[in-house]
Amino acid sequence: MKLGPKNCLYPMPTTLIGALVNGKPNYVTIAHVGIMDMESVSLGMNKSHYTNAGIKENRAFSVNIPSARLVKEADYCGLFSGRTEDKTVFFTTFYGTLKTAPMIEQCAINMECELIKTMDFPNHDIFIGRIAETYCDENVQTDGIVDFGKVQPILFVMNDRSYWKIGGKIGKAWEIGKSLVNKKENRKISNISLLICLFQKGTLYFVL
Amino acid sequence: MKLGPKNCLYPMPTTLIGALVNGKPNYVTIAHVGIMDMESVSLGMNKSHYTNAGIKENRAFSVNIPSARLVKEADYCGLFSGRTEDKTVFFTTFYGTLKTAPMIEQCAINMECELIKTMDFPNHDIFIGRIAETYCDENVQTDGIVDFGKVQPILFVMNDRSYWKIGGKIGKAWEIGKSLVNKKENRKISNISLLICLFQKGTLYFVL
Repeated sequence: MKLGPKNCLYPMPTTLIGALVNGKPNYVTIAHVGIMDMESVSLGMNKSHYTNAGIKENRAFSVNIPSARLVKEADYCGLFSGRTEDKTVFFTTFYGTLKTAPMIEQCAINMECELIKTMDFPNHDIFIGRIAETYCDENVQTDGIVDFGKVQPILFVMNDRSYWKIGGKIGKAWEIGKSLVNKKENRKISNISLLICLFQKGTLYFVL
Repeated sequence: MKLGPKNCLYPMPTTLIGALVNGKPNYVTIAHVGIMDMESVSLGMNKSHYTNAGIKENRAFSVNIPSARLVKEADYCGLFSGRTEDKTVFFTTFYGTLKTAPMIEQCAINMECELIKTMDFPNHDIFIGRIAETYCDENVQTDGIVDFGKVQPILFVMNDRSYWKIGGKIGKAWEIGKSLVNKKENRKISNISLLICLFQKGTLYFVL
């Protein structure tokens, strides 16, 4: 059935975007995010957000990944504006190499980003940032690799305005699909066998 | 610990991007996607992909959301190029209003998109599309709303090159964080009580 032009590209990871606004750190909850390439991310931020001016001024922001145990704090930072509320009270702020991208110590993953492009959409500023440095808690790594089963990110779905947990692993990328190659080859072999069989009977039928 | 400029904005939804290439439908697996605003999505597609030329030519593409039971087919479409493999054999293709954005009937959600902008990154074409129409299987809806517990999307993590399932719901967005308001107010009230108490004792101390 048709839904009209409805965005259903979910779930998306819930992030806390950090920026200095009027010289003070602020955090806002954004899940309309994206990956551009291996070192770049995008934020789709409604122009009403207090944070946008700070990102433009400092040409820097941070992307912090809160875990499921911070779901209330993450939601709070989306409920209230930095204009009236000091949302840093829930967190310990630290700075990295950029100096103007406040980050949250309580989040297992933090990426500080340099603003490389802003796109002006009707109601949104689209910020594209190049990652300058990524910080990761050792406790969410397995054999030196970030393990999202341990990160326990908060997944966001707009359709029913809900947060979800990540589930179990279902396969290796660039691997699990290889099993279909054999099936395809088996199919080819059986087609050839059929052809030989038909030849042996002295008649060549059209093989679909 | 520092990881260098490592993209950790995961998990991302795994999609099958449909386009006409040289007049024929083709599907490629892309999880480096994003939401720009309510009606726009982005694709970060390495320039080596066969599909990019088709998107540029027709200025249209589709975003299909495969479910976990299609994980092998989805992975296969990322393993092999449309230059050498006809990946439509796994699916039933249909077309919508744009006519040039092939979609997959086996995916519960399909969005046909008009290309509105292309950004030239060093190794990637960034395609931004405006959704023209969204198609959704009634079986993945609950009370008329898309239910991602039923969609069972495939989540992708680059760090360990893995696919994941969605887990359980953990809260309502713009709701679960409200409980912290009361806590904050309680904190304010107890601070006021302390102040009154100190006044009554005839001395005003500095209250932190």
